[in-house]
Amino acid sequence: MNPTAAILVIGDEILSGRTRDSNMHFLAQELARVGIDLQEARVVADRHAVIVAAVQALSGQYDHVFTSGGIGPTHDDITADAVADAMGVPLDVRDDARAILQAHYDRMGVEMNDARLRMARIPEGATLIDNPVSSAPGFSVRNVHVMAGVPRIFEAMVAGLLPRLTGGTPLLSQSYRIQRGEGEIAGPLADLAATYPDLAMGSYPFQQNGAYGANIVIRGTDGARVNEAMTRLATLFPE
Amino acid sequence: MNPTAAILVIGDEILSGRTRDSNMHFLAQELARVGIDLQEARVVADRHAVIVAAVQALSGQYDHVFTSGGIGPTHDDITADAVADAMGVPLDVRDDARAILQAHYDRMGVEMNDARLRMARIPEGATLIDNPVSSAPGFSVRNVHVMAGVPRIFEAMVAGLLPRLTGGTPLLSQSYRIQRGEGEIAGPLADLAATYPDLAMGSYPFQQNGAYGANIVIRGTDGARVNEAMTRLATLFPE
Repeated sequence: MNPTAAILVIGDEILSGRTRDSNMHFLAQELARVGIDLQEARVVADRHAVIVAAVQALSGQYDHVFTSGGIGPTHDDITADAVADAMGVPLDVRDDARAILQAHYDRMGVEMNDARLRMARIPEGATLIDNPVSSAPGFSVRNVHVMAGVPRIFEAMVAGLLPRLTGGTPLLSQSYRIQRGEGEIAGPLADLAATYPDLAMGSYPFQQNGAYGANIVIRGTDGARVNEAMTRLATLFPE
Repeated sequence: MNPTAAILVIGDEILSGRTRDSNMHFLAQELARVGIDLQEARVVADRHAVIVAAVQALSGQYDHVFTSGGIGPTHDDITADAVADAMGVPLDVRDDARAILQAHYDRMGVEMNDARLRMARIPEGATLIDNPVSSAPGFSVRNVHVMAGVPRIFEAMVAGLLPRLTGGTPLLSQSYRIQRGEGEIAGPLADLAATYPDLAMGSYPFQQNGAYGANIVIRGTDGARVNEAMTRLATLFPE
């Protein structure tokens, strides 16, 4: 059994429609590659109680929770506080995080101040997640991995974090395009899916130049089984 | 108080990273326009028990739940069954839905079959949601609005559905670009945000040509208040 995971995207700007999230899709692809089974995604607002409740629910239910957003220096960056509360650990400025930030500000020639120092507040017992873009670290507290919302930083943090986590068998996926409407292929497809309960078969309809079709995607961790099912699918619906 | 809402995106293809969801972002923008307050988004897999649990949790918590995906004719389309179970109502083929489909298939010159007829299964007491693209209707059962996952169809269904719902005061939003790092502006910004507890102020950092900056977004339903806060922000941080 592969480890399971959820992503929690924290940010009013996603829910208000201002920003289109991209971290969920990026993480979904990366987790499939390393064999961690992403089972749920949530987006919640920048509200302390809401973040605490979501972190508690998801961290109890899945092997890993990845969060995105809310770890900067401004008043709306409340993720570290909420995660610390959710996990029942104190939060304070930590020397190693402060040193990382100080070195960064020294290089940039700017002063440390209270706002910037907020980014060195790390829940007790957490492991830092490296931020090669703008220095301010993320952190893992038990099974909750807290990362920045800015896509370039989120992606760099994921790249540093994933090798630390124990993955499973990568999810393999093959797809097959059928130029017939879903209503026509649904019966035989359901029978085939029932024959391979260890695989997931999804049908994704499209319409092109007025004609209906569907992309059938077969997913599983056993490549031989995926191949076998795909061969039978192609036999059922020759091109 | 504006009505509250959640969106529930149903689909393995989003969680596996194959497809990047766009319905969440589209709906977020539409709801902001009509004054319905999107407070949460979830993505779950094509699994009956998981969908039932999510529909029950969200429909109990918010005024409206909008679902996306899983209402086609294939074996992986299990949303109607799950929503009916979640809401405790029976599900069966309904004459008006069947007539809509039959007329569509007659126009296309294809036969009705068991798979296609699945799309006429509507929970008892539901109101149909028009599908001007491919006919198979969505439906509203109490406060749960069930729509297709294909973006073009989802968007058309939302356009038909929203005028039926009672909106609130549209969420207004203004943004202001500041060419200084978040760490520098965080203090005065937090003071300003505390002066306007009725508004949401978000800071979204960016980096351009090596220089740090932030877009400050002020959101609220009272345009005069948003204007006033924005004027004070511009005075604090002149261009």
